[in-house]
Amino acid sequence: MPPSEHDHSSVFDTDTAVAQVAPTTFAARLTDRWHIGDKPNGGYVLATVVRAMQHAIHASSAGAHPDPLTVTGHFLRPSEAGPAEIEVSIARIGRQLATVSATFTQGDKERVRAIGTFGDLGAFVAKGARTDVALVPPALPPAQECIARPPFANPQLPSIADQVTTLLHPETGWLRGQPTGRGEVRGWLGFADGRPPDTLSLPLFADAMPPAVFELLAGAGWVPTVELTVHVRGRPSAGMLRGVFRTRNLRDGLLEEDGELWDADGHLVAQSRQLAMLLD
Amino acid sequence: MPPSEHDHSSVFDTDTAVAQVAPTTFAARLTDRWHIGDKPNGGYVLATVVRAMQHAIHASSAGAHPDPLTVTGHFLRPSEAGPAEIEVSIARIGRQLATVSATFTQGDKERVRAIGTFGDLGAFVAKGARTDVALVPPALPPAQECIARPPFANPQLPSIADQVTTLLHPETGWLRGQPTGRGEVRGWLGFADGRPPDTLSLPLFADAMPPAVFELLAGAGWVPTVELTVHVRGRPSAGMLRGVFRTRNLRDGLLEEDGELWDADGHLVAQSRQLAMLLD
Repeated sequence: MPPSEHDHSSVFDTDTAVAQVAPTTFAARLTDRWHIGDKPNGGYVLATVVRAMQHAIHASSAGAHPDPLTVTGHFLRPSEAGPAEIEVSIARIGRQLATVSATFTQGDKERVRAIGTFGDLGAFVAKGARTDVALVPPALPPAQECIARPPFANPQLPSIADQVTTLLHPETGWLRGQPTGRGEVRGWLGFADGRPPDTLSLPLFADAMPPAVFELLAGAGWVPTVELTVHVRGRPSAGMLRGVFRTRNLRDGLLEEDGELWDADGHLVAQSRQLAMLLD
Repeated sequence: MPPSEHDHSSVFDTDTAVAQVAPTTFAARLTDRWHIGDKPNGGYVLATVVRAMQHAIHASSAGAHPDPLTVTGHFLRPSEAGPAEIEVSIARIGRQLATVSATFTQGDKERVRAIGTFGDLGAFVAKGARTDVALVPPALPPAQECIARPPFANPQLPSIADQVTTLLHPETGWLRGQPTGRGEVRGWLGFADGRPPDTLSLPLFADAMPPAVFELLAGAGWVPTVELTVHVRGRPSAGMLRGVFRTRNLRDGLLEEDGELWDADGHLVAQSRQLAMLLD
């Protein structure tokens, strides 16, 4: 069975599809349906790269390493809607872990360079090794009491807000132009078309919320990601995810954003951290 | 001026030295002086890779990007004392940022694959962009009231404990065989030979403390790093660093470790996160 069997009813699966054109070369086609402003969201691009990595590993390991355990993308320049080529380089296919890197190129310009280690989260569960989680899920009112992410400047244009349902905590201050100053956003996240989350989609969700720095200070503008790392720590159950993202270290215009994604069963399924630049 | 002018009086500079043997190919030689048990510490290996990255970027950018802003290493298999080859691949040399990846190989076996984005932290400071840091340095008694990291099983063998002075908080429970259960270690860190910390050495310090999981549960054994990401957020002042490292998400034998390194002036100079495996 190929990895992440393509489901034609899901926008995410359609828009991150890759076609193998050589043993480690994949063709993709970004759509404009995951835009932030006029550029594809970085998490969407990274998820497409991760799918190509997953296919390349699958072909070399007979499906032994289905889950991205830790993936990092460095964003060299914005991507565009349209065709792309992903070249995967295999570092090691081991018994428990498989590591690859990849380049994502459009029109002779590399846009993203990435690295990832994959494994089988089901096999880790089956070993019965220790679990001890001190973190707790973010408190959130029921989804119907939360506030849908507001449309972007031009709501006529397609955007990630059409594909990722984002229901923010009602006390989110920047929704009223009054950031709390705490540098934290939290809310419910899910695919608008009802596709359940899986490990492949967690890198997308880790970059899909409005930036936490919007809650830290008023007037924050564009916050381009320099690097995003996502640890996928569990296979999410069906249902909406709870996300919390925090910026606690803004220094000289560079900032970190730390994220947690919790599934409907209360399990911490991903931890993310990005380095971003705050452009005034 | 070449990057990180080699200081023959510093063990760190000597033991991470690289020689350019082709435009993007570097020769290195790991020593046994940074061992954990019988293998080189991962942070030491990563610092050596970062030095090669720094040289390759320097050669392509006339020294415009001296600081590693975010570096990630994936550890494929243990490294060994002895010769190594580092091959750097340049993704983009931009105006503000430069991104490269690298492979670290010994004896035809790749040991580490890495990626990093470099820049000039001094230029970010000079722009006068915003700073807002909500995190606070870890509370620590003066160094003379802290406890030196105990020797490894065989104190006759060389180890990282000889090169990195590590003074742990006196309440560290595992020193007495009684982990606190909080999954946190904190202490003072510095080079034993007095070399001041710099941005190149922070990836080493980010992996130099005893694992935080030692404070979470008794009987934790080997904790090999799968992936380590270090954000270098400031140039450290002279003096010892304060480090705090936390594991709050141990699940099915995989764990994260989040670290902060603070300089003697009370600035947060690095944030790190690693994914590691707990082997019983």
